[in-house]
Amino acid sequence: MQSFNPPVRTLMGPGPSDVHPRVLQAMARPTIGHLDPAFIGMMEETKEALKYAFKTENELTMPVSAPGSAGMETCFANLVEPGDKVIVCINGVFGNRMKENITRFGGEAVVVEDKWGEAVSVDKVEQALKDNPDAKIVAFVHAETSTGAMSDAKAICALAAQHDCLNIVDTVTSLAGSELRVDEWGIDAIYSGTQKCLSAPPGISPISFSERAIQKLSNRNTPVTSWFLDLNLVMGYWGKGAKRAYHHTAPVNTLYGLHESLVMLTEEGLENAWARHSANHEDLKHNLEAMGMSFVVNEGDRLPQLNTVWIPEGIDDAAVRSRLLNEYNLEIGAGLGDLAGKVWRIGLMGYSARKENVVLATAALKEVLASQ
Amino acid sequence: MQSFNPPVRTLMGPGPSDVHPRVLQAMARPTIGHLDPAFIGMMEETKEALKYAFKTENELTMPVSAPGSAGMETCFANLVEPGDKVIVCINGVFGNRMKENITRFGGEAVVVEDKWGEAVSVDKVEQALKDNPDAKIVAFVHAETSTGAMSDAKAICALAAQHDCLNIVDTVTSLAGSELRVDEWGIDAIYSGTQKCLSAPPGISPISFSERAIQKLSNRNTPVTSWFLDLNLVMGYWGKGAKRAYHHTAPVNTLYGLHESLVMLTEEGLENAWARHSANHEDLKHNLEAMGMSFVVNEGDRLPQLNTVWIPEGIDDAAVRSRLLNEYNLEIGAGLGDLAGKVWRIGLMGYSARKENVVLATAALKEVLASQ
Repeated sequence: MQSFNPPVRTLMGPGPSDVHPRVLQAMARPTIGHLDPAFIGMMEETKEALKYAFKTENELTMPVSAPGSAGMETCFANLVEPGDKVIVCINGVFGNRMKENITRFGGEAVVVEDKWGEAVSVDKVEQALKDNPDAKIVAFVHAETSTGAMSDAKAICALAAQHDCLNIVDTVTSLAGSELRVDEWGIDAIYSGTQKCLSAPPGISPISFSERAIQKLSNRNTPVTSWFLDLNLVMGYWGKGAKRAYHHTAPVNTLYGLHESLVMLTEEGLENAWARHSANHEDLKHNLEAMGMSFVVNEGDRLPQLNTVWIPEGIDDAAVRSRLLNEYNLEIGAGLGDLAGKVWRIGLMGYSARKENVVLATAALKEVLASQ
Repeated sequence: MQSFNPPVRTLMGPGPSDVHPRVLQAMARPTIGHLDPAFIGMMEETKEALKYAFKTENELTMPVSAPGSAGMETCFANLVEPGDKVIVCINGVFGNRMKENITRFGGEAVVVEDKWGEAVSVDKVEQALKDNPDAKIVAFVHAETSTGAMSDAKAICALAAQHDCLNIVDTVTSLAGSELRVDEWGIDAIYSGTQKCLSAPPGISPISFSERAIQKLSNRNTPVTSWFLDLNLVMGYWGKGAKRAYHHTAPVNTLYGLHESLVMLTEEGLENAWARHSANHEDLKHNLEAMGMSFVVNEGDRLPQLNTVWIPEGIDDAAVRSRLLNEYNLEIGAGLGDLAGKVWRIGLMGYSARKENVVLATAALKEVLASQ
């Protein structure tokens, strides 16, 4: 058994995205204790920076010590009680995963379905709210990583509020890549990932809960099933003040990485980061369309950071991706579920959203397709 | 907001332990995709090395993508069904946490209690098994991190098997630090952490399940409550063969760190690592006793990697630890729960278990105590 020296790739799939050398170097700094005063200071800065990234003043804003899937589970485990009716919008893999979470925690899922590649239909959500006056939560994915579709989070949250429902929003792929305003849009519970547009290594999930969400949590009749994700306990460690109670051992070095990526975000400015993702998307779109490729998602609903295009007819999906990886060290994403073998997902996330990557991906894809 | 440059500490608390520079450097290697063939090769090596560390041939041996508390939850979420009677041994914080897990997943906990600082009483376990012929699982902590007591895992597992019970064993602090033989002792479900005697950064929990445990999992009447920790799904990604299905995004760089720490373990040899922990413990014990300090745990039941001593009378716990940290950059651990303010926990775990640390801790403690 020998040390593992990974190949140096350019990561233009659906995540993880390329991690900046500054962030990688931060990961290698000496590990210190999770109750060290110096570490607690860094935790405070991280929470503040996450508030900035989420555009929120929510006190309960913190990173969960596990990947985005655990961030999702944190929201559902804490907010769904047995018997709760939850309207869940499914237009891809991650809406389905939300539904799994709801039913496993004893909730009743009312499904609002849209075609993969389309945004969630706001009209259908409104109808479901009218049809289910006893619904307590509306859950949906802002940026569907399996298709590249963006939904109208602002409109859906407003509707949910009109019908006295909380909302749970998946922003794993949108945070720091597209416009996202937690307080202005009235988002109640939100989760994201570190390995997409923040370009920190995977393994952590930033979350934020509104006062309304905390109230629902405080008024539960049953304990949260998960001890590890029970925010009543987690907040003893991540909460306000210098006095922190041990709950679990935080992933110290991964948090160094997240902290550094947030330093870089504040240096660039959140709105500038959104604009950079859009600009690179425009360039890539122009290049791909010039090659005769077309997008799965309608123009107005596209995520700039995840470009999902139909694989040209007669082209072998796996062969192309494999050549890109082996010959150009370039990773692009395969399709998931119904879209497997039919689409490619080309990510422009975080540090990967750069001009040099746009031209690299275009040129490499052109060469490989020409010799298929 | 500026980059975070942690102080350089010597970590001699209950974990995290000092991380070797080779492991830190591994963390900083370029992130690659969690489905990259190169990454999948590294996953296979990691699984094999974990089998070596656990002394098992269990096919289901893998790292959970979250800290040890989530490793614990993985065992209980997958193996405890509503109504299952579980005998749980409590002789410290982590036995209590096991009980919390059991009841949250709908199990019925039968508690076998021992004093903090004592090993689990094998006789009491036998009695509980006789009194509860319908019990399905026996759960206990091999190495109780809150007290420094080691229990007789071999004897307890044998008793459980005689009474047709599965066992769940917490080895967060023992793995790679003390004798531990999963197959020989008949352990069914085991979890550990990376940040103790493996000296990889925190954030990952190695687990291993026997065939008997997998059978219980396969025969469940109810789905596992946690989607994130459902091993039926997780094994689609971590299981055998080159074809891996996406479940969640693995913590790529933290796994680099774990891999490197396992490379170092195979270089040293597992039995040599056990012996190193013992030898350094003997030296530290000699020094502490020469200073008039005494151990909380009886000689035969002590964990070499976690030395829990009574705080001398009249000494201010927090003041001493704070001076050690601020003046010597040395972290030792406080007491937890009933032992808070009464004991110190001095860790000699993994890369922290070195002669130079033994003399540093001794000398620093001597100086500080002399001037209290």
